[in-house]
Amino acid sequence: MIDATHDPALRSWVASAQAAGTDFPIQNLPFASFRRQGTAEPYRGGVAIGDQVLDLAALQRSGTLQGLAATAAAAAAQPQLNTLMAMGPAAWSALRQALSGGLRAGAPQQSAWQACLVPQAEAEYGLPARIGDYTDFYTSVHHATNIGRQFRPDNPLLPNYKWVPIGYHGRASSIGVSGQRFRRPVGQTLAPGAAAPRLGPCQRLDIELELGVFIGTGNALGEPIAMEEAEDHVFGLCLLNDWSARDIQGWEYQPLGPFLSKNFATTVSPWIVTLQALAPYRVAFERPAGDPQPLPYLDSAHNRAAGAFDIQLAVELQSATMRAAGQAPAPIVQTSYRHAYWTVAQMVAHHTVNGCNLQSGDLFGSGTLSGPTLDQAGALIELTSGGTQPVRLPNGEVRTWLQDGDSVVLRGWCARPGAARIGFGRCEGTVLASAVAA
Amino acid sequence: MIDATHDPALRSWVASAQAAGTDFPIQNLPFASFRRQGTAEPYRGGVAIGDQVLDLAALQRSGTLQGLAATAAAAAAQPQLNTLMAMGPAAWSALRQALSGGLRAGAPQQSAWQACLVPQAEAEYGLPARIGDYTDFYTSVHHATNIGRQFRPDNPLLPNYKWVPIGYHGRASSIGVSGQRFRRPVGQTLAPGAAAPRLGPCQRLDIELELGVFIGTGNALGEPIAMEEAEDHVFGLCLLNDWSARDIQGWEYQPLGPFLSKNFATTVSPWIVTLQALAPYRVAFERPAGDPQPLPYLDSAHNRAAGAFDIQLAVELQSATMRAAGQAPAPIVQTSYRHAYWTVAQMVAHHTVNGCNLQSGDLFGSGTLSGPTLDQAGALIELTSGGTQPVRLPNGEVRTWLQDGDSVVLRGWCARPGAARIGFGRCEGTVLASAVAA
Repeated sequence: MIDATHDPALRSWVASAQAAGTDFPIQNLPFASFRRQGTAEPYRGGVAIGDQVLDLAALQRSGTLQGLAATAAAAAAQPQLNTLMAMGPAAWSALRQALSGGLRAGAPQQSAWQACLVPQAEAEYGLPARIGDYTDFYTSVHHATNIGRQFRPDNPLLPNYKWVPIGYHGRASSIGVSGQRFRRPVGQTLAPGAAAPRLGPCQRLDIELELGVFIGTGNALGEPIAMEEAEDHVFGLCLLNDWSARDIQGWEYQPLGPFLSKNFATTVSPWIVTLQALAPYRVAFERPAGDPQPLPYLDSAHNRAAGAFDIQLAVELQSATMRAAGQAPAPIVQTSYRHAYWTVAQMVAHHTVNGCNLQSGDLFGSGTLSGPTLDQAGALIELTSGGTQPVRLPNGEVRTWLQDGDSVVLRGWCARPGAARIGFGRCEGTVLASAVAA
Repeated sequence: MIDATHDPALRSWVASAQAAGTDFPIQNLPFASFRRQGTAEPYRGGVAIGDQVLDLAALQRSGTLQGLAATAAAAAAQPQLNTLMAMGPAAWSALRQALSGGLRAGAPQQSAWQACLVPQAEAEYGLPARIGDYTDFYTSVHHATNIGRQFRPDNPLLPNYKWVPIGYHGRASSIGVSGQRFRRPVGQTLAPGAAAPRLGPCQRLDIELELGVFIGTGNALGEPIAMEEAEDHVFGLCLLNDWSARDIQGWEYQPLGPFLSKNFATTVSPWIVTLQALAPYRVAFERPAGDPQPLPYLDSAHNRAAGAFDIQLAVELQSATMRAAGQAPAPIVQTSYRHAYWTVAQMVAHHTVNGCNLQSGDLFGSGTLSGPTLDQAGALIELTSGGTQPVRLPNGEVRTWLQDGDSVVLRGWCARPGAARIGFGRCEGTVLASAVAA
């Protein structure tokens, strides 16, 4: 619901919240888990405002919040946000209203709140939640078609795709927050024509541009969540990079799906943008003409009218050479989440229709968010047509697959006339050399 | 390593530990998380001895343990065993030695220990560990071949099977302990020849007879566990039923693997039998003549000589009618874990070769443990040849797939001349009616 907290005219007493192009104006108010860099302070919840983090533990101690907002801030003062997530929409909304009120220009308690600010430049971030289970979906029909075409040129999209929001379980233990550095995975691959596989470092290391969905309130085993209530169970969205080893994947994935090709690392942004903040960027969920309508358990009037989100997404790449030369990460892809074939609510309803229980802090990945054209591809396997069409970087380097030392930065933001631009910050990860020689 | 704790002549002052056919003689000493039924007592670790549970929290308070064994018992006094699991083999061994010493006939502190016993008949069990991630493997070549034959009669086994210990990620949130009762899952299925899928209760509900593997000590991200160290990271084994909805699975599993067909419930036994207890039941890991030898990262001299375990496994079924008539569950399958194509150590080494991090309390499933002949099949889909050859129960009822009210009991035990028989107890789960009508 759009309310006064979304008013584009709203201004904060934190000056940087008005900076051109900031991801974090007062209309956003995303959540993270943070502490001061290089300290042994406990992690606690924080909210981004301009170039600052509002420390929710300090704010709670300040005694300037009352009622449900104070209870929610106390929950958010914990090292991870699971307790806040479990409180549900009324608590999230009360906290958002209080934060919007306290941070706006002219707010009476500015000096007490000022003391709760920590510059983002001095912060380090933890995982925003204890993630019990991580599920990765496959909601881009363009990605599914592009990938399918490489395996089955005449029949790229499987018959279930337009009926089933395909998903599979991922690995929670190897999810890291932006800044994650991981070794190039080692695994079995079968060279074309070879009689036997060999073990070695991945040669086709890829990214997957995704959004993450953090579950707020869960459900009991055996009690599905209906479409009409699905969004009430969602706390917010983040950026997610589902690093993928395509050569390992090709050899291992039959018949039970990807495993070691995915579970060596997954990187999320520190900031979770709430569904409330995204309200001005809802768009209709539309099926292309001729496509089947979703089964009733995946359909609702609200979903049809406004179940999708128009979130702009971009991928940037910085090689080790670029970094050494002080060159910023270079954009290689831009697309939008609006092209997804299944919505957030449909993921929740599908995941629970069989009785599966979700828990506060569970994470969904959207699956690679490729748009309709190849320059909107969310993975190198598509962007480079299976490694045959290299991408050129500004300094003349080329990439088909990731090289050691490469950093990949995901970005996301929403912008339209009549609404404040809001963003997701950065989701960055860096590939280190493998532990073994090729 | 076989030591004095395995001596078949060893007797306990707990008389029921000598009862014929007991799963829990003094040579076993498996761990669970328990409390007295119907109380609000905290769960804590316990060890089975005969028909009793030795309460490790009470034992720790008794002050009768010293040194590392006392530290390990203090860890095991927590509601779940993760801390004990994280302590590693030296601590597990010290605790086993102390328990074996204190429970054996003639032990000096019998009266203090006697006060720490709770009858199993008065106990209820929790999940033995907080399970961060659950991975299900596919280690029975017989199961893989039987299932593959139903889909690809001419080419049942995929080319990767004899090289890759196939696995995929499962759902941790819906794992329950023996006694779990769950609703028949609802999901999308596509009837043969139908143009569109429909939503409804699963019509082909199945079991999967598996062993579970609880990880003890984990590894850091990026640091694989070598075969030679793999078993040091394993705390013990339990029974596991990976309930499966075959009709939902058939429609959803391409291309990313099983999802809603599996994640509605998974049942484990309360008791974890340690690798130490299983030492007398090690057998050689042998590949059939002509099969490829494992790649070096999946091979070790110890694994070849003694990497497999000869654990007898059985499935029993009790229908609602049988239960009402006071008839015990009837055996429908018996097999052995020795037929598995990949060992516990190989699962650990493979899972981490890409750098994936395991954590204390993580759970692996072995995959359905079917033996070489169809009467050794660990799933109804094999036992009934895809639902075409019904199984007859003693009261005349027949089953192709599970019906509402059916309880399935898994059992496991080890027995051979010159060693004490040890067992896993029961792993029981019951199917309730679906939340929606067919």
